Amino acid sequence: MNRACTIGIDLGGTNIKAGLIDPQGLVEHKLSRVSDPQRGPEHVLADLAAMCDDLMRATRRERVDVCGVGIGTPGPLDFARGVILKAANLPGWVNVPVRDRLSALLRLPVMLENDANAAAFGEYWAGAGRDRGDMVMLTLGTGVGGGVIVDGRLLHGHFGNAAELGHMIVEPDGLPCPCGQRGCLEQYSSASGVARRVITAIESGRVSSLQAGLAAGYVPSSRDVSDAALAGDDVCGEIWREACRYLAVACVNIQHAFNPATIVLGGGLAEAGERLLAPIAEEFAHQTWSLAGDQPAIVAASLGYDAGIIGAGGLARNAPSIARTEPRP
Amino acid sequence: MNRACTIGIDLGGTNIKAGLIDPQGLVEHKLSRVSDPQRGPEHVLADLAAMCDDLMRATRRERVDVCGVGIGTPGPLDFARGVILKAANLPGWVNVPVRDRLSALLRLPVMLENDANAAAFGEYWAGAGRDRGDMVMLTLGTGVGGGVIVDGRLLHGHFGNAAELGHMIVEPDGLPCPCGQRGCLEQYSSASGVARRVITAIESGRVSSLQAGLAAGYVPSSRDVSDAALAGDDVCGEIWREACRYLAVACVNIQHAFNPATIVLGGGLAEAGERLLAPIAEEFAHQTWSLAGDQPAIVAASLGYDAGIIGAGGLARNAPSIARTEPRP
Repeated sequence: MNRACTIGIDLGGTNIKAGLIDPQGLVEHKLSRVSDPQRGPEHVLADLAAMCDDLMRATRRERVDVCGVGIGTPGPLDFARGVILKAANLPGWVNVPVRDRLSALLRLPVMLENDANAAAFGEYWAGAGRDRGDMVMLTLGTGVGGGVIVDGRLLHGHFGNAAELGHMIVEPDGLPCPCGQRGCLEQYSSASGVARRVITAIESGRVSSLQAGLAAGYVPSSRDVSDAALAGDDVCGEIWREACRYLAVACVNIQHAFNPATIVLGGGLAEAGERLLAPIAEEFAHQTWSLAGDQPAIVAASLGYDAGIIGAGGLARNAPSIARTEPRP
Repeated sequence: MNRACTIGIDLGGTNIKAGLIDPQGLVEHKLSRVSDPQRGPEHVLADLAAMCDDLMRATRRERVDVCGVGIGTPGPLDFARGVILKAANLPGWVNVPVRDRLSALLRLPVMLENDANAAAFGEYWAGAGRDRGDMVMLTLGTGVGGGVIVDGRLLHGHFGNAAELGHMIVEPDGLPCPCGQRGCLEQYSSASGVARRVITAIESGRVSSLQAGLAAGYVPSSRDVSDAALAGDDVCGEIWREACRYLAVACVNIQHAFNPATIVLGGGLAEAGERLLAPIAEEFAHQTWSLAGDQPAIVAASLGYDAGIIGAGGLARNAPSIARTEPRP
């Protein structure tokens, strides 16, 4: 009997990804399908259960070989009860007891976690944070997501919203954020924030190599900004450097708050690799204190888009016993 | 047999305070004496042991009635081994195994913690954070100290320097800090930072009601600044409001990092009470997001200068068993 593997699921507004994860955090097999969440929770939960069955079939596993299922989803969640309270990109999903419903369908223990936390746990367990100790992850995508691991466990906080590090204020009275604050990290250092700032600069009359494309209707990405910066575009260079500088300030604040061994940078912006890491390292060395040698390693994520399913699979290793879920109807 | 009480010690560069702490966190009896640390660790450790004996005698306790001794000291420390690595205000104290030496002298379990953490634990256990859940404390004194309690335990981080919240950067490229950074919270919002900024403003030619005193050699305190601000002094009002504004920014960042139930403000600046709390509350409501109702309560500390000995006493309740300490010589 081999119960050591788990199933990790990344339930997003557009796609569902699921993988059979081995005890070392490797993806043995993975599947994906569109999520179509407006069909309502019951249809989507039935799809999740079917994907788990497909994964077991494809890898010749029985239920008895799987010790649990982990799901990463957008929040906010009630972690203790395994309930999606409300999810911006799963319309109509309010107070959905995902953990207990899926556990009843699958007759397996299920664990629910928010998607940024699941990805962070993946990098901690089997990726760039592996074997390094306490870790903080920043996912630089549409926004900036965060995940904090202390003594091997994700930090949730009293209200369940710990590690919302994209909403650290890095510039008092800075750029407005849809969250209601000003000067949030994600306005300067998310993939979409970087692209948006370049568009705003061009629209306000600054000269850039990206302006012809923009005038023709092509919306630049953070990758375009990084490429243009490398090619000598002033506006793009300036905005790219500011993204790195605010990330360095955020890393100093993370150093003093959590004192982790490692800060892992993931998401679309981190695909720039050394173009992002080298200026952050330089700026971090300039910004951080000289009182103690407690500077974290700042490294790129290594699991790419699989971090979510791997992390969900890793968390499922500690899923609550099936005994506490409701009986199958 | 009543082993439920503990002894809490606050070992500072100037004074040693020690108290017998009951199971509810009340100070049953306390003592203090000058620390005179340049005599060297062995003399001071003998004093600590003698103070513990005096406390037991004064409260008619035997060793068997005391379940442990906690010591809060300046750091940096090696928590796992109970060693003071180096302490700025205990000259010559390098690699001193305080926990094991005192435990050998007293034949009692001993626990070592840094002083800001001990004070935070005191407020959590028996003060303003009592019965509220996860808590963060900021001590606004000479600098700004921090302490973070997650699930009932102090956060130490990988290198042992977590919760150094006075060195959060709240103003990129702001005022220089002796730590080597710029724009640290403690430059704007410590008791000494507030007073120093007023002095700098007067020396640069700003008009203030405190300038005559300063010219006569009287160095204003943060209390003087608060009083002058209340009386309508422009410079003092401006610097006081900025102290509150940066504290509000720090509280927003603490909210998103740790998501605590409570943020407790202690130290000299917090003695201003509502003069500090009211503008912080107003500015915090203005600065924080509207996405979730996860705003922490921001309250004043309630234990005053006893927080350190009470917290050290509380931590001593979980002191490692005496069995792991070295035998009495």
